[in-house]
Amino acid sequence: MTSLSMINAAAKRLDGHARVTPLLSSPFLDDLAQRRILVKPECLQHTGSFKFRGGWSALSALDKATRGKGVIAYSSGNHAQGIAHAATLHGVPSVIVMPADAPQLKIENTRALGAEVILYDRASEDRDAIGLAIAEERDLTLIKPFDEPQVIAGQGTVGLEIAQQSKELGITTGEVLVNCGGGGLTSGIALALETEAPEMQVRPCEPTGFDDVTRSLASGDIECNSQTSGSICDAILTPSPGQITFPIMKRLCGSGIVVSEDEALHAMALAYSRLKIVLEPGGAISLAAALFHGKDLSSDTAIVVATGGNVDPSIFAQALQRFT
Amino acid sequence: MTSLSMINAAAKRLDGHARVTPLLSSPFLDDLAQRRILVKPECLQHTGSFKFRGGWSALSALDKATRGKGVIAYSSGNHAQGIAHAATLHGVPSVIVMPADAPQLKIENTRALGAEVILYDRASEDRDAIGLAIAEERDLTLIKPFDEPQVIAGQGTVGLEIAQQSKELGITTGEVLVNCGGGGLTSGIALALETEAPEMQVRPCEPTGFDDVTRSLASGDIECNSQTSGSICDAILTPSPGQITFPIMKRLCGSGIVVSEDEALHAMALAYSRLKIVLEPGGAISLAAALFHGKDLSSDTAIVVATGGNVDPSIFAQALQRFT
Repeated sequence: MTSLSMINAAAKRLDGHARVTPLLSSPFLDDLAQRRILVKPECLQHTGSFKFRGGWSALSALDKATRGKGVIAYSSGNHAQGIAHAATLHGVPSVIVMPADAPQLKIENTRALGAEVILYDRASEDRDAIGLAIAEERDLTLIKPFDEPQVIAGQGTVGLEIAQQSKELGITTGEVLVNCGGGGLTSGIALALETEAPEMQVRPCEPTGFDDVTRSLASGDIECNSQTSGSICDAILTPSPGQITFPIMKRLCGSGIVVSEDEALHAMALAYSRLKIVLEPGGAISLAAALFHGKDLSSDTAIVVATGGNVDPSIFAQALQRFT
Repeated sequence: MTSLSMINAAAKRLDGHARVTPLLSSPFLDDLAQRRILVKPECLQHTGSFKFRGGWSALSALDKATRGKGVIAYSSGNHAQGIAHAATLHGVPSVIVMPADAPQLKIENTRALGAEVILYDRASEDRDAIGLAIAEERDLTLIKPFDEPQVIAGQGTVGLEIAQQSKELGITTGEVLVNCGGGGLTSGIALALETEAPEMQVRPCEPTGFDDVTRSLASGDIECNSQTSGSICDAILTPSPGQITFPIMKRLCGSGIVVSEDEALHAMALAYSRLKIVLEPGGAISLAAALFHGKDLSSDTAIVVATGGNVDPSIFAQALQRFT
């Protein structure tokens, strides 16, 4: 179970390796939202998303002999690149099991970051069976994308930075809006803020139709999405919150905020024009929540974690065309 | 005449007001350039360009009574927004004289940042006469865009940050590539590095057809461009280097690097995909120089100052369409 001391230890291991992302702002966004908006651009993190933090944390927490044998992960997206890059920088092999129909660019990027990519056919093959066979054969360590204590600890370092950077601005109260898939980042940030900024509250943000965490927090039990594909917010589509992450979110988070795909695209366009950063749809949900769902917020300050920027140019161009 | 002590004093005045921008990198860019590339994204600075630094420096250096009467500037672009925002944050009025045919968005943004915008007709009216009349009538202080010691000192704080941040990475030698219009930023950075990182050399970067600084450095005398419009790199189109900036550049800078518009668009697309930042064409020249003109460089490390990100969505979409 992840604790503040594990997050602090992860921060020490990440020091000099992960980027400390700044807090950005724009008077135009403040005017639009009618409150102070601070944006933490994790799109500027290595590999273009916060996932590098959890990957580095998990890899660096392994003992040297175990790590040396290599790691394996299942992912078609940001977790794949975070693990691949962190493993290469550690000088150890990584295997990423990806669906054969994943975007060619993501497969190429993951390979270019140093991973061995194993493709499988979603329709006819069992991903877990393939991965398990390779892991056993080569004695690799599986790094799960969110329900893994050292991954949560790594993502929690975002929360440590938010607490410190907002304190430097004289801000100690506010709502922290986090794009939420399985809840690794959300629960990690919530654990860090519980002690380091106890008057801040984390609000998970999700796209319409994939609001499993919002419904789970409302009912008190783990709820599932009826589908796990069919949204441009591909980075945060998971079937349900994790067994480890959900109890943390239930204890510490405020209610979820659900945002439409069009609102996410609109937020991407505003992040382009007002902050000069590139966000993917699943990375812009939290900004959309701050800008377009102000009635759901209760604080003068919304701190937005903009989680990633790995977006196809055609989708980005669409956001610009429709909303600038 | 700007000195290191003036730059250090400007850094103190900017502390807590201007953003300290990070140094970004990507293994993909290193591979492409076949050397280490570090990018300082001044597009993330307030108002989307480094110009805020010089604006804040000049305003904060005025005595209170003078500043309180207000300031005036001529600009259709980044200097306008930097001065307008810095003046508003100081609580003093600003007047920006802009051509009536400037992009509507830039006029609106400058107004929204708090400036009074005075439009003039480029064909029939004399900008300087209009500005001078208003300045005298209202007792406003003119803040020139580059040939002004306190503006150069403010831009020079970029150099202080480069020296410190690269030292933290263990880097003390390299070439610092800077997009160059009138030379305020280029000369300020060169002055800061002269003492703080003496083994680094500044290389001014310019677009084809507007290579006045490159030719001036080659001839040893101030040379002029035959035109001052007609490039998408609008942010750095100036007739010639300044009377104050040129002697500094002549003493401290290496030779200039000239880059095509297509290379600038290509660099914008790579900044989008690999760094997740938004650059304007004139802000991407230096990155294009590092990526596509490696034969003109002699160091293992190129530090790229990515100066701004205020770009029309249609031009940005064009860069993505052609080069991703």
